This record gives sequence, C-alpha cells and structure tokens, in this order.
Amino acid sequence: MSKRPLILITNDDGITAPGIRTLIAVMKTIGDVIVVAPDSPQSGMGHAITVNATLHLDKVKIEGDDTEYSCSGTPADCVKLAVREILKKKPDICVSGINHGSNSSINVIYSGTMSAALEAGIEGIPAIGFSLLDYNWNANFEHCKSYVKTITEQVLEHGLPDGVVLNVNLPNVSKAEIKGIKICRQARANWVEEFDKRTNPMGREYYWLAGKFVNEDNGEDTDEWALANNYVSVVPVQFDLTAHHTIQQLNTWNLND
Amino acid sequence: MSKRPLILITNDDGITAPGIRTLIAVMKTIGDVIVVAPDSPQSGMGHAITVNATLHLDKVKIEGDDTEYSCSGTPADCVKLAVREILKKKPDICVSGINHGSNSSINVIYSGTMSAALEAGIEGIPAIGFSLLDYNWNANFEHCKSYVKTITEQVLEHGLPDGVVLNVNLPNVSKAEIKGIKICRQARANWVEEFDKRTNPMGREYYWLAGKFVNEDNGEDTDEWALANNYVSVVPVQFDLTAHHTIQQLNTWNLND
Repeated sequence: MSKRPLILITNDDGITAPGIRTLIAVMKTIGDVIVVAPDSPQSGMGHAITVNATLHLDKVKIEGDDTEYSCSGTPADCVKLAVREILKKKPDICVSGINHGSNSSINVIYSGTMSAALEAGIEGIPAIGFSLLDYNWNANFEHCKSYVKTITEQVLEHGLPDGVVLNVNLPNVSKAEIKGIKICRQARANWVEEFDKRTNPMGREYYWLAGKFVNEDNGEDTDEWALANNYVSVVPVQFDLTAHHTIQQLNTWNLND
Repeated sequence: MSKRPLILITNDDGITAPGIRTLIAVMKTIGDVIVVAPDSPQSGMGHAITVNATLHLDKVKIEGDDTEYSCSGTPADCVKLAVREILKKKPDICVSGINHGSNSSINVIYSGTMSAALEAGIEGIPAIGFSLLDYNWNANFEHCKSYVKTITEQVLEHGLPDGVVLNVNLPNVSKAEIKGIKICRQARANWVEEFDKRTNPMGREYYWLAGKFVNEDNGEDTDEWALANNYVSVVPVQFDLTAHHTIQQLNTWNLND
C-alpha cells in the first residue's frame, strides 16, 4: 500500500486492557488507527450481538490526546458500529486483541476476540485476532510486538483468501525462545467441565463454570502443537461452517419418504 | 435403537417459549426427554458461555407434572450443566429450538440455538438445531412437527458424521406447500446494518441494532434457495473452523524472514 492503511482496532477484554494498548502501539507504526472497543470485559461472549438492548457509544481519551470509542456492546457490535456509524466506510484491516488468554483450537468458538475478527471478515474486511497465552491482566506483551507487526503487514500486502480471517496465538515465553510463525489447523480439543457448586449466603445453590482443557489431537500441524513447541500459531478461520464433505453421505438418508 | 433414546432439549428463546414446547411434544413421541433451557430469552448470544458470573439452575414445572430445569445462563451453559450436573452422562441426542426466527446462512454464527447444538457436538453428542422462519412469539409450529420427527429419527438411526451437527430451518408456510427436506450448504449472505440512533429522556444518545438481510449467493444448493422454494433446509455444520484449503497459499508468505 502506498498510503497509510486505516486500521480498526477492537478487543473483548475492554478498552483499557493492556493487550489492546499494546496492539494500538504496534498498529500506529503501520497506519492510521481507530479504536472502538467494549467498555467492559466481554470474555466468553462468543459471537454475541446486542439485539434486545440498546447500545451506547462514548468518545473517550485513554492515552494522550487520541479520541477512542467505548461501546456498551459486544466485540461484534463494536465492529458493526465502527463501520456503519463512525467510519461510514470499511477500514483496510481490522485487528482484535491482544487477548489476555488463549483462543487456540476449540476456544475460537467461545472467543469474543475472534468474533470481532469474524464479524469484520463477514463484512469483507481483512481481519486478524491476536491472543497471548497468559490470562493475567498484567501479562507481558512486549515479545508479541514484532510478530503482530509482521503478520499484519503480510495481510496488508497479500490480502486474505475470500471468506477467511486469521486466528493468531502467541506463546507465553521470552522472545528468545520463540522459534517462528507457523500456519496451522485448529486442533481437535475440548473442555471437560467441572462445575464448582456452592451455596450463597441466602442458602441458594449456584455454580461456577470451571474445567480442564483436553487436547485429543496428536497432529504436529495443529495450533496446540505449535504453541507447545514455542511457535506463534496462525490458523485461517472461515465463517462458512458447512461440512461440505458430508453432504453426499447425508443425501443417502431417507428424508423424503 | 431398541430402548427409548434419552433426548436433551434446550433452546435460546427461554424455557416457556412455544417453540420449545412444540419440540418437547414431538420428542416425547420418540424417547425420554430432559429439558434444560434458559430462564429468559438469549437470542443473538452466539456461542456465549458464562465465565464471569455464577449460574443458577432451578427445577420447574411448566406443563403437567414433568420436572424441567431452568438455567440463568446461555444455551451453551445449559448443555454443559445438563451433561455434567444433571444427567452426569451423555444423552443419546441433543435437540435445540424450535427457534422463533431463521438461523439459516450466516445467522448460524449469531445463533444461540445453534450454539447449544454445537456445544453438544463438541461433547460428542449427536445434535440438531431447529428454527422456524417466523419471529412471532405466537408463531404456528404445527406444520414443523413431522419434519422435526423425521430428521431426529434419521439422526438416531444413522448417527452423524464426526464433528458435525445439523442446522435445520423450516419455511413459514402451510404443510401442504412444503416440498420436502433438502440437504444444503450455508448460503453466502450477510446483514447490512442500519443503526437506529435515538436520544433517551436524559438526553443521552443510544442505538438500536437493525439491518437488512442480503443474500449474495445465487446457488441452488444453498439453504436460502431451499427455504425460498418451500423446502426444509438441513445444513451439516462443523466446529473445525479451519479453512484447510488456504493453508498452502498462506505458507507462501514471508512470515519468518
């Protein structure tokens, strides 16, 4: 690109999270940025949109004199509002994150970070979700910067295949330990829930969702393998969920007797 | 199956919605049912899970003497709680719906109905989401019954391909007009948002999310085509979101220079 690209930045940990602050710093070295992010943490929101409530959008200043937009809705809402109401045009790219915590393998399904990227992708905007494998609010994002920059620049240079956005996860190790960037497939993994059942002071029972992550996939081409071996994982993610390879088989069923 | 199958029923419109009441009536003709559904409408929740709040689960009686479970969480939470805390085993099948409104094409991404089915699929449980193309609370579900029954019985007989759940949408026409059941792919379509900007009594601006559905896909093998032509659409949906066909292309990029 000859002119500076317009970069839309959002996340799901909320507009004040250190992860998005790092992402903004990196993006400012690449282009002009616009920040539209949730006013509070939205983790685990999946691809939620706000259909039964109203949305607020406030201009805020968080660092220096830059105007940013704080939104009462979900990450997907932020992208929709940014494109339609604030920019009134499509940005050159949308980046989401850097999430505090993994969005690798099956976590992509539950991820607000990735839902923002998918929402942008559905609108035809090249998009990337970035996540660091550290859930701490005070996680160190310093080693992420060069990888985030490289991947974003490559997407700006090449574009993305039609109907695809990128899910990038970064291992929580020092920069010296990172072996490089790897294109991967989503590992077959899931969460085995262990609900923590408690009783509140009024005597009513309630649950906390907890659980153990189980990777069932031995493949060395997966994001889980890459991350366990200190690579940055990049999974191309599509929003056509059709299992095309199963259509022939399902057409043998007796559905119309 | 020689013995009666155990059927987990949930939805995203809430446990009292007419759609789930119809689904329960049909499932009782097939097997033994357990109902675990949200205590309030969850439309547009996508694949949200409740990670930052507690969950309540209440035994309720809504019709006759059957005990059902009302949950404060999302449809995905309902499936997790049903399997781990109530049944303490996997049901033979999970059905979600019947949703009041379409979950065809790109709507699958935003759908709480389908997120429950996907959650069950991730747990290895055969699962189907059903939706009727009528958003009204008092929609007529009568013509859905025989199709819901046929599709559920076929899934119980054949099982489902690994990693796949079904997204079933039913046209809002009389039974006489329905031409049959069609296996389809997800149409390429999206929503063009038109935010409705208003001012509240305190003078603060807010937005309602509104929009127009645009089907860009001329294919006659899509769910949108099937529904427009009075077929019941069945799309096999997968939770491996990897765009496998793009990995070779992405591997030509200069990511590790």
